[in-house]
Amino acid sequence: MAKKEKGNRVRDALRAGGALPDPASSPVGPGKKDKGAKKLASAGERLAALQEALYAEGAGGGERSVLLVLQGMDTSGKGGTVGHVLGLVNPMGVQYAGFKKPTAAERRHDFLWRIRRRVPTPGHLGVFDRSHYEDILVPRVSGLLTAAERRRRYREINAFEQELTDAGTTLVKVFLHISPEEQLRRLTARLERPEKRWKFDPSDVLSRRHWPAYQQAYADLLDRTSTGHAPWYVVPADRKWYRNWAVAELLSETLAELDPQFPEPAYDVAEQLAALKGVGASG
Amino acid sequence: MAKKEKGNRVRDALRAGGALPDPASSPVGPGKKDKGAKKLASAGERLAALQEALYAEGAGGGERSVLLVLQGMDTSGKGGTVGHVLGLVNPMGVQYAGFKKPTAAERRHDFLWRIRRRVPTPGHLGVFDRSHYEDILVPRVSGLLTAAERRRRYREINAFEQELTDAGTTLVKVFLHISPEEQLRRLTARLERPEKRWKFDPSDVLSRRHWPAYQQAYADLLDRTSTGHAPWYVVPADRKWYRNWAVAELLSETLAELDPQFPEPAYDVAEQLAALKGVGASG
Repeated sequence: MAKKEKGNRVRDALRAGGALPDPASSPVGPGKKDKGAKKLASAGERLAALQEALYAEGAGGGERSVLLVLQGMDTSGKGGTVGHVLGLVNPMGVQYAGFKKPTAAERRHDFLWRIRRRVPTPGHLGVFDRSHYEDILVPRVSGLLTAAERRRRYREINAFEQELTDAGTTLVKVFLHISPEEQLRRLTARLERPEKRWKFDPSDVLSRRHWPAYQQAYADLLDRTSTGHAPWYVVPADRKWYRNWAVAELLSETLAELDPQFPEPAYDVAEQLAALKGVGASG
Repeated sequence: MAKKEKGNRVRDALRAGGALPDPASSPVGPGKKDKGAKKLASAGERLAALQEALYAEGAGGGERSVLLVLQGMDTSGKGGTVGHVLGLVNPMGVQYAGFKKPTAAERRHDFLWRIRRRVPTPGHLGVFDRSHYEDILVPRVSGLLTAAERRRRYREINAFEQELTDAGTTLVKVFLHISPEEQLRRLTARLERPEKRWKFDPSDVLSRRHWPAYQQAYADLLDRTSTGHAPWYVVPADRKWYRNWAVAELLSETLAELDPQFPEPAYDVAEQLAALKGVGASG
């Protein structure tokens, strides 16, 4: 069992509220890359141990789970976070769901329909790579959502997340915050490097034209949906090593607070040990 | 793009056929733990790069996927393999499916029903932790399957796997081969260590009583279902580091042979670079 983590230092420091931090800053934790890498490794070990305990708790009938929601502008590092942070725990316990532009079939349902189908099952660490929040951001910036519809979606999202929380799922909602300059560097790299070109989509350039509108939409969204039961965290994401460390710590702190418990065996240990020794299997 | 791997040295050496190897042997590759750890790291890097290319190929419309099927006696290391080998690639590209004793609802369907629902989607690396093969092994050893039913299931499995192969899924079927002595050590450790007890089930002791019957059932199964399109590999699994290296190499060789291709961009690169530079987004 992992050493129990004290406090909620990183969660407190990164919780949404007020002005957004500098995307290249370290509001908490390591300020330099080499230190960040070391701290990521130790956060990763804690996270892997805690996640194993959560998985065991679930296997024993426990109902709790954790859901990491990743949002951010194109190139903000959602996929990289999945690889570098979720890659630290056993894939058995991870349930990944990526949400792209809704399909025709999905659009015939309520916007939460496809989301509900992918919430993590007990004992698991779910990851949403984009999420129901896209269904406010994109139509809003495109001018396809009235203010009344937007308020209704906020209400529905808050109710949905309350429902998840009540059912035993702890949400960790992360906004990966990058600067437009860093995005330009990353989009340019995607175009210049042949093995990165598949990640680029011409719509990325169009979205970039709406940068201020998206920042406004995010600010409003953070304000309206950062609730007591499902707060948002803002992670400065211009530096990948800081982003990875911060997300690993947010998850690790959250899991430590849940303090998942290995289930008590439903059998008699001494009896089974005796039975085991009495059975001389040989190949 | 990963360096293309030559040949199929590990696959040839571990392919099922004839007598089973010593569970503590190294039929191919490293014979010592420290060398094995180094070679696992380099196999892991190749595997991660190849898997990213497969994922990209799938994102670009490609239909190919890979399915690792893990079978073996209790404690043979299926979960550990998932953690140590699949944990080396981005969780975005991994689809894990564990199959336990069928539920009442599942038993009302054909035995392949629940399996078909979990085959990997294009671009993904699927993992079956136990599989359709349990539906021959367990009922056979329990005396619940007639010889005629067994033959029918073999036929159905071979046809199913041919269908998967035709649809673009390459199967890598791995039997993790441990000795009864090593199983005794591992089961004892599960009982003696409180944080391992949740992995133990009293039925493990009962299965152990049928060790020779299971070995016989496995030998027959390997013989009947190691086909040209979906061969079995036997991995000596008494030593965890060897098992991890061998499975990583089997996957890496298989993916290298598939030689997944990053898709060609559907846009004009120079045009997009110009558009990108012309857009002065600022926050």
